[in-house]
Amino acid sequence: MSQYWSSLVHTLTPYVPGEQPKLQQLIKLNTNENPYPPSPQVLAAITGAASADLRLYPDPGSDRLRETIAAYYSRESDSSITPQQVFVGNSSDEVLAHTFQALLKHALPLLFPDITYSFYPVYCGLYGITYRSVALDADFRIQTADYAQPNGGIIFPNPNAPTGCLLGLEQIAALLESNRDSVVVIDEAYIDFGGASAIRLVNRYPNLLVVQTLSKSRSLAGLRVGLAVGHPDLIEALNRIKNSFNSYPLDRVAVAGAMAAFEDQAYFEQICRAVIATRDRLTQGLQQLGFFVLPSAANFVFARHPQHDAATLAQRLREQHIIVRHFRLPRIEQFLRISVGTDAECDALLTTLAQLAGQ
Amino acid sequence: MSQYWSSLVHTLTPYVPGEQPKLQQLIKLNTNENPYPPSPQVLAAITGAASADLRLYPDPGSDRLRETIAAYYSRESDSSITPQQVFVGNSSDEVLAHTFQALLKHALPLLFPDITYSFYPVYCGLYGITYRSVALDADFRIQTADYAQPNGGIIFPNPNAPTGCLLGLEQIAALLESNRDSVVVIDEAYIDFGGASAIRLVNRYPNLLVVQTLSKSRSLAGLRVGLAVGHPDLIEALNRIKNSFNSYPLDRVAVAGAMAAFEDQAYFEQICRAVIATRDRLTQGLQQLGFFVLPSAANFVFARHPQHDAATLAQRLREQHIIVRHFRLPRIEQFLRISVGTDAECDALLTTLAQLAGQ
Repeated sequence: MSQYWSSLVHTLTPYVPGEQPKLQQLIKLNTNENPYPPSPQVLAAITGAASADLRLYPDPGSDRLRETIAAYYSRESDSSITPQQVFVGNSSDEVLAHTFQALLKHALPLLFPDITYSFYPVYCGLYGITYRSVALDADFRIQTADYAQPNGGIIFPNPNAPTGCLLGLEQIAALLESNRDSVVVIDEAYIDFGGASAIRLVNRYPNLLVVQTLSKSRSLAGLRVGLAVGHPDLIEALNRIKNSFNSYPLDRVAVAGAMAAFEDQAYFEQICRAVIATRDRLTQGLQQLGFFVLPSAANFVFARHPQHDAATLAQRLREQHIIVRHFRLPRIEQFLRISVGTDAECDALLTTLAQLAGQ
Repeated sequence: MSQYWSSLVHTLTPYVPGEQPKLQQLIKLNTNENPYPPSPQVLAAITGAASADLRLYPDPGSDRLRETIAAYYSRESDSSITPQQVFVGNSSDEVLAHTFQALLKHALPLLFPDITYSFYPVYCGLYGITYRSVALDADFRIQTADYAQPNGGIIFPNPNAPTGCLLGLEQIAALLESNRDSVVVIDEAYIDFGGASAIRLVNRYPNLLVVQTLSKSRSLAGLRVGLAVGHPDLIEALNRIKNSFNSYPLDRVAVAGAMAAFEDQAYFEQICRAVIATRDRLTQGLQQLGFFVLPSAANFVFARHPQHDAATLAQRLREQHIIVRHFRLPRIEQFLRISVGTDAECDALLTTLAQLAGQ
């Protein structure tokens, strides 16, 4: 609190990220990091970028990375995606921040689910955006029909966080059909763990923006690279904001690493398969312990136990050096969000939970 | 132009950075990059950070880097600087953007020089900040007395850009004495090339914020790391904005490289001395060709020729594969801003200019 603060600063309620503990020897299942390292090609590319050229600014438009991403999604989505349809930034959080400011601030309220990524209302506070939250149904699912109301934009993660529930592309297409006057942002941080990307719809819907990150499926939470794909007019708005904020958001090392990540498709597919297999195993193990587990298409599961208080379980796990995420929020305060680790980490979690549930 | 854009987007006039040409074999003296590579210790630290740990998020507060910077400036400024007085971001442009939003938006206008870093009015446009520009004097100097007027904040680079002119610490202290009710931001991108940092004043003035970058004197334009030092209350405002925008602005690689940059003091001093020596040599060479050169304390010089049109000279240099910066702006349209390269690059520039001035 200070006389020097802009009035906005007094009103902000900043986002609280999952803890990044400095202790070693933890089983860290609280921030949805990938349990596998980045591709060896990524590490080689980063080492290669450790050169005298770091004295020079990066390309402000990250053109080569955008070309790589456009070519990648042209193949993957059976569409023609051009670099002019791609925006990149210093993490998908930065891309989302620019998106809120550039495309989601209008007279009508922005709509997003009542249970979703908790950064969305924070961005609204930062940019003075009016929003209305739309309740998930009793099964914690997004019902697209509930979004058929006047709005200045719609955003949700798919799969949703922290529930892990996936919406099919037909439902997203239907939502876009019935909502042509405002932007629909699909935040696909977790899409590679079992969903189909809405990028294949961007050439049909000029109001669709798809946001992705390299933090989860490409094991690069530590490198901070995110992206958006959409109509060139939407990308132009993001560029105008970006070029009024920071001309060079991606450093040379991050660009080199990110390009390599999109080039090693075999490794990417291998680790996604491994995470999915462990998720299914973890889900079964939790169910055997009596947990109710929402069907997850992400690299985490969202689970509650009918007899055990979630906050207490999280605390007890922590005492055993296992960290999971618990949100003290309405409707979900009895759930734990558990990131999918290695098989060994998930086995250790299940063993500990079996002991705790037996107490 | 699109119906989907927030109204703000229509009003923006984005910053235009100096060109980053993709051609090789240029003499690139247009964006004030350091002609020398980063410290070998920086490159080793980056290589060391190319590890499996990149799968994990970085520390959101970049605590170890802030501790390193606090210890560094405690030594360098003979003050006690704590990590709570240090903010870090993805380039000083990002730090400046947060500063404008957090500390410089008030009912009274922000003041900055009429000739200065051209990103300042862009930030004002992005955040809806009222500003008034204060004319440099006839010698292109900042007169601090001119800032004795009601204001919601003051910001200028020291040395100023693109002039290179330095203000002494006594003048900055006098400005702070007479301006206790609003924040004064000293943007020290170029301070290591001959000035004294105002960081030694932060413990005396709770309204002083000093911003620096690793892009110039530490040869890391390609890594994107900037910082601010000031009273913990000012840093708290920046953190509130940062944590409402992007929790993890600095990636693991950038943190490792930045820490190493502050640890290799000998290399840093060596390349700063080399740049200063070449700047003095370049200044003399230009003067011998008839140029008027402003006294520079930066890693660039600002010069005009009484007989030769600056835009034409810049174009002719370009045809010879030498790029300098020309601003088509009032008062300075007859100046060229020339970054200090190696001795060989500056000799090539002078040789070419001698030919052009002879035409």
